[in-house]
Amino acid sequence: MGKKFIISVDLGGTNLRVALLDLRYRIVLKHSFDTRRLLNKNRLIKIIIEAVNNILESQNLNKRNILGVGLGLPGSIDYEKGAVHSLTNIPGWKGVRLGSLLKKKLGIPVFMDNDANLMCLAEYRLGAAGGSRYAVCLTLGTGVGAGVISGGRLYRGANNAAGEVGHIPLNESGRRCNCGGRGCLETYVGNSRILAEARRVFGRRISLEQVSGLARRGNAKALGFWSGVGRHLGIALTGVVNLLNPDVIVIGGGVANAGKALLDEVKKVIRSRAMTVQARHVKVYKARLGSDAGLIGAAVMVRDGARG
Amino acid sequence: MGKKFIISVDLGGTNLRVALLDLRYRIVLKHSFDTRRLLNKNRLIKIIIEAVNNILESQNLNKRNILGVGLGLPGSIDYEKGAVHSLTNIPGWKGVRLGSLLKKKLGIPVFMDNDANLMCLAEYRLGAAGGSRYAVCLTLGTGVGAGVISGGRLYRGANNAAGEVGHIPLNESGRRCNCGGRGCLETYVGNSRILAEARRVFGRRISLEQVSGLARRGNAKALGFWSGVGRHLGIALTGVVNLLNPDVIVIGGGVANAGKALLDEVKKVIRSRAMTVQARHVKVYKARLGSDAGLIGAAVMVRDGARG
Repeated sequence: MGKKFIISVDLGGTNLRVALLDLRYRIVLKHSFDTRRLLNKNRLIKIIIEAVNNILESQNLNKRNILGVGLGLPGSIDYEKGAVHSLTNIPGWKGVRLGSLLKKKLGIPVFMDNDANLMCLAEYRLGAAGGSRYAVCLTLGTGVGAGVISGGRLYRGANNAAGEVGHIPLNESGRRCNCGGRGCLETYVGNSRILAEARRVFGRRISLEQVSGLARRGNAKALGFWSGVGRHLGIALTGVVNLLNPDVIVIGGGVANAGKALLDEVKKVIRSRAMTVQARHVKVYKARLGSDAGLIGAAVMVRDGARG
Repeated sequence: MGKKFIISVDLGGTNLRVALLDLRYRIVLKHSFDTRRLLNKNRLIKIIIEAVNNILESQNLNKRNILGVGLGLPGSIDYEKGAVHSLTNIPGWKGVRLGSLLKKKLGIPVFMDNDANLMCLAEYRLGAAGGSRYAVCLTLGTGVGAGVISGGRLYRGANNAAGEVGHIPLNESGRRCNCGGRGCLETYVGNSRILAEARRVFGRRISLEQVSGLARRGNAKALGFWSGVGRHLGIALTGVVNLLNPDVIVIGGGVANAGKALLDEVKKVIRSRAMTVQARHVKVYKARLGSDAGLIGAAVMVRDGARG
């Protein structure tokens, strides 16, 4: 038999990461591939298969050592069917049953879900949401990804498409969103919008890392900027808190590094606007697992799925 | 042994209803009490006990014939603890363990939840949401009550306070809401607000029943009025659809009787604003069980609870 491992695959906007993890979710090794050239379905499948086989060879493992392969994809994924509803910014994937395609070629069980759900699963099992029963986890980046834990499991919804906190409308007549909606949270706190806002506030091109650096050094403009972002986020989360009554909200992704100014404002808004019972109970934490959360969550999914 | 029954108690804004139901949730008899005089805790407990004993006597039943007593209360209720977080418009109930107080005095198992959850449970088991796995049910009245069904059970949240669709913010700078928040859905579609809006539109005092009557006869102003209400509701539900990915949304309560104009607009807004996968899947139905939904749902709760 030999020792068991899990292989996790995390498809991001610019790269594909493939990792080998042990059953305690420790990353044994990790490879990264540039994906700007492989957005096509067949190339992606090919590179995943090559990467998996490479890992097996280099570690002197065979398929029986691998409990399963877990895929995290950016977009709307049907976990149960192992199929893609759609991938964000990557056309041509609608309805593709990537799970069974890969399983057939690899001869290893394959599980897949969207990256935000997997980040949430990881933070719930090993990170900031540990010990809770009801959790909401957000990843702030180009888009706003999110996952919901209910009674200890991912809340998936009728088409496994639930959890889109980023697409809750914040204002009835807000801007058009990429999702087709209007005034979604993502149109207020997605990276491109807040970068433009930062440029306006500081009167020059400035990166979000720079604004975060300024905030850490106490710069008033930068602090005000982040609390403005936190205000939008806090108002959207007020609705989530009233609706879902979570134990904990976890905020991760690049923007979460803005630190205290952002998180403090989120907490303040929830405390002042959400309903008493829900507001008093909920904790707001920064994510703990960083950029490996997706890989770890994919491994958790495989282990849970392989258990049945 | 003898035949088994359930007693349901439904506390509303102006009256308390107590009913005897059989195990197929048919109402055998029903009594109504004016509650404007009995808002005080001890009086309410006393009248419930008297009503239960009266039913037992009049039907020649004893306690062993009663599977349990199910209470539906207007407010935030902790189902698991059998305790009141707070009652809407009725002060002095915070933390009261009404469940164990009644159980001790009655010698019968007692279960309790908020009225909107029970309406949702009833519509899910016997009404418009039958056959779904994920459902959201709304009751439009003075307030906006709601319940969420997830994987066939009520989604309750960390403090059993989840489901507050009526308190999702629709606009960041909206009006103050009774809940302490701002711009909540309830501030747009609660009865008092839409009554005031109707008065403005028609230039005279007019009841919502009258506006509904006009709409049914094709009056353009009335149709426009209800589609305006439906628009607010549809935008809030867009967020709910994106977040929860339900199979079905059920809309009940007085305002739901506005009929097609309201429901059509809700559907149209969800179709045009919600995310593709979720929007295509969700059905929007009118509630089927009418004003007895709360009594029926209380009986379902007792039967489920008594099963363990």
